[in-house]
Amino acid sequence: MHIDFNCDMGESFGPYSFGADEELMRFISSANVAGGFHAGDPHVMRKTVALAKEHGVAVGVHSGYRDLVGFGRREIQAPPEEIRDELLYQLGALREFARLYGMEVQHVKPHGALYMVAARDEALSRAIIEAVQQVDPGLVLFCMESSVTYRLAGEMGQPVAAEFFADRAYNDEGQIVFTRKLAGELDPEEMARRVVRAVKEGRVTTESGGEVEVKCDSVCVHSDTPGVVRLAETIVRELEENEVEVRPIGRSEAKVS
Amino acid sequence: MHIDFNCDMGESFGPYSFGADEELMRFISSANVAGGFHAGDPHVMRKTVALAKEHGVAVGVHSGYRDLVGFGRREIQAPPEEIRDELLYQLGALREFARLYGMEVQHVKPHGALYMVAARDEALSRAIIEAVQQVDPGLVLFCMESSVTYRLAGEMGQPVAAEFFADRAYNDEGQIVFTRKLAGELDPEEMARRVVRAVKEGRVTTESGGEVEVKCDSVCVHSDTPGVVRLAETIVRELEENEVEVRPIGRSEAKVS
Amino acid sequence: MHIDFNCDMGESFGPYSFGADEELMRFISSANVAGGFHAGDPHVMRKTVALAKEHGVAVGVHSGYRDLVGFGRREIQAPPEEIRDELLYQLGALREFARLYGMEVQHVKPHGALYMVAARDEALSRAIIEAVQQVDPGLVLFCMESSVTYRLAGEMGQPVAAEFFADRAYNDEGQIVFTRKLAGELDPEEMARRVVRAVKEGRVTTESGGEVEVKCDSVCVHSDTPGVVRLAETIVRELEENEVEVRPIGRSEAKVS
Amino acid sequence: MHIDFNCDMGESFGPYSFGADEELMRFISSANVAGGFHAGDPHVMRKTVALAKEHGVAVGVHSGYRDLVGFGRREIQAPPEEIRDELLYQLGALREFARLYGMEVQHVKPHGALYMVAARDEALSRAIIEAVQQVDPGLVLFCMESSVTYRLAGEMGQPVAAEFFADRAYNDEGQIVFTRKLAGELDPEEMARRVVRAVKEGRVTTESGGEVEVKCDSVCVHSDTPGVVRLAETIVRELEENEVEVRPIGRSEAKVS
Repeated sequence: MHIDFNCDMGESFGPYSFGADEELMRFISSANVAGGFHAGDPHVMRKTVALAKEHGVAVGVHSGYRDLVGFGRREIQAPPEEIRDELLYQLGALREFARLYGMEVQHVKPHGALYMVAARDEALSRAIIEAVQQVDPGLVLFCMESSVTYRLAGEMGQPVAAEFFADRAYNDEGQIVFTRKLAGELDPEEMARRVVRAVKEGRVTTESGGEVEVKCDSVCVHSDTPGVVRLAETIVRELEENEVEVRPIGRSEAKVS
Repeated sequence: MHIDFNCDMGESFGPYSFGADEELMRFISSANVAGGFHAGDPHVMRKTVALAKEHGVAVGVHSGYRDLVGFGRREIQAPPEEIRDELLYQLGALREFARLYGMEVQHVKPHGALYMVAARDEALSRAIIEAVQQVDPGLVLFCMESSVTYRLAGEMGQPVAAEFFADRAYNDEGQIVFTRKLAGELDPEEMARRVVRAVKEGRVTTESGGEVEVKCDSVCVHSDTPGVVRLAETIVRELEENEVEVRPIGRSEAKVS
Repeated sequence: MHIDFNCDMGESFGPYSFGADEELMRFISSANVAGGFHAGDPHVMRKTVALAKEHGVAVGVHSGYRDLVGFGRREIQAPPEEIRDELLYQLGALREFARLYGMEVQHVKPHGALYMVAARDEALSRAIIEAVQQVDPGLVLFCMESSVTYRLAGEMGQPVAAEFFADRAYNDEGQIVFTRKLAGELDPEEMARRVVRAVKEGRVTTESGGEVEVKCDSVCVHSDTPGVVRLAETIVRELEENEVEVRPIGRSEAKVS
Repeated sequence: MHIDFNCDMGESFGPYSFGADEELMRFISSANVAGGFHAGDPHVMRKTVALAKEHGVAVGVHSGYRDLVGFGRREIQAPPEEIRDELLYQLGALREFARLYGMEVQHVKPHGALYMVAARDEALSRAIIEAVQQVDPGLVLFCMESSVTYRLAGEMGQPVAAEFFADRAYNDEGQIVFTRKLAGELDPEEMARRVVRAVKEGRVTTESGGEVEVKCDSVCVHSDTPGVVRLAETIVRELEENEVEVRPIGRSEAKVS
């Protein structure tokens, strides 16, 4: 048995350092590389790809709103075709650095507010999926199982990976409660056991104490979760002790219908 | 006989319009598409590639310093490896839009101050050429015959195109005098005849009234030269009347040594 | 009888020109000077203040979201305290240039999406009004009579100016219909007569053909309305022929309660 | 006896943290507040002014090139009148926050590459000094005694403060050797004793082991010097033990000639 483990990477900018990329890259299998709009810059992007290559980690583009000061966490009312073009721009940039290091881009994961808006906005999800299909149908789109993005990708034949968020609570509808952060509430061991259960049994305890089914193609931790390095290390160890190998989800060979 | 004819394109930004792209695209054969750092944005880039496709015009990346307010015309003391990464980033972005329209990127042309600094700076030219060779050795590098970039590209086996600037004066050393603009001094007919002579005979009259040899693989006009649309039209007509076809220089098949 | 006449100014950026500032400045009495976040830059700001001084036009800060590519026309979900600080920052910058030319800043007018969000958002309007009161209670806040901003400013004792939009339709509730642009529908003469009526009688014909009362402390035209220069000229002429003088609303001496 | 002690502050940006502002503010007497062009943003600026107010620290504008990714450390060939306008813009912004907290702006200190270019460029220094004189002649200009800025300010009657850099070496001409950083070479105690000697005797040991006279109106440490908090603490303690009080240099009452 195996599972993918992803984290946001390459979010430093010029003189500004962000995230423990060097330490986290040892544990994850897929790096969501900031595309330079909500965070990151070309020099950081190249170094992040080089680091991923060194650790056998697959790369995907982490494209956000053009909003450095807000770190892509603020919703911006932008037309889908502009967001699509910003995503393609960032995807192409990452692809160039991947090429420089003899790698292929594996996946696409919108960042922050863009991820959340796409999750409920059909026109935006459609624009993103269509663009990805046109330029590279083998790219895997990371999203939440409960999102419009996930449903639409399925209908359009685009390969997706459902994410399980290791550091966030779930409600009884199987939706992630982004405002309820588990770090502080649970210790790393408990969070890691929760991940193993989601991966192996497809079930998670909700914030009300109930149980829901969850789909998990890739485990995600946030790079700014307190104690994230130890959390990542614990998750990987717990997965391995339960005979789950951490490895990249891989590009899809599935043909678009 | 045939010749390439290039112009900067896609330099609008968000609400800000710049240049007569739609009119000029009818005359040129190669569009230097702004990469989004000195000018341009992803949405403009896509529309520019679509416009080029429509007119059978080849595209290249026009990458400048990250300096929107200065339009890339101000020298910035930046390490060559940062400039290289910015160029790769912009190149990749353009390549993605080219892919969307079933095109290949033909060439690389640094913009403004970056073009001029590279022309005299060996470390910067080397960084650019090496990066281009690693990601796509078929790309043609546009530069001045008198530049360090041109010489070094020759030594490193990188395909180049020497530019002849239709709207600038030349001195007796065969160097372009960027501060001496011909529009206003010469009428479009005279400038067009000057282009034909450079293309067919490889000679140009200098600002002192002398004569020098010039190499011309691609004719360039600046999109902000007064009366540029009529100038471009006149150049094309004059070339055709002299049996010189205007067509893209094309990607190089030359192997890197 | 007299009335203020305002227009957005100083929205050029670096190499990018925007708006017919030099021509419009001859007709208006209050310039909303772009603060550098949605448009404008420091050099443009200084030149705009100089131009206003030359024409006896009062200046106010036109502060928008930090969103150059979207021209401040896209809503951004930002905390009120961040918007307040961005407004103070831009206000201070304008005040410095006003000081350089021996002028005082007269007014504050949020731009585009920020103006519209504040119009319905009490927390944002309150943050803006409180900040303005703390740094300079004599500043006049430009807003729509139908807005939360207007009502709240009244309650908080902050001087306001209700704007009448010369180039937009009104509905039967007295609200401006920003999506219904009158240029094209009406000729400049008709639009100018409409302004005179709003100013002198406080009434306007609505899009349904009805009539509503409107409050008009300052007439506004958009700098990107087609034919805006001729429209501005016609409005001024029509006002003068009807014995309404165009002059700045002036700073308020009213004490904050 | 007393001396001023300054440090760069407010260089965080959006989600990006930079510098130990809260700890350093306890030791310094003058804060050079980033103006938002090389670093800082409006929200950070306000918080920095509030923090300075709380600690009785005077504020000045730290204005740099518009170059966030390069942190204002890269020279940009910009016309003096553009730099002047950028400085006035940032100065005005700071003044607004100072007003909000009932403070006055005390000084102006160009940042990084701009400081160094002005130090050798008469046209740039003149543009800065003239602008400062026009808007507020009481502002003190921080610079190096060996700079063109210092000499010109003297000729133009502009109040200046000569800085002594606690964490940099000096050569036998009394010039600061910015590339030779003392942290690592010297321990905090030694560096602090060096400061006391510069302040009390106006002398410093050079990198060759010689001695030169130095003028010191304000001691400066760089916020990114390793161990800067302990260094600042040690300098203040050593100064106090030698009966030198640390306090702001204060605005100048000197009339411009």
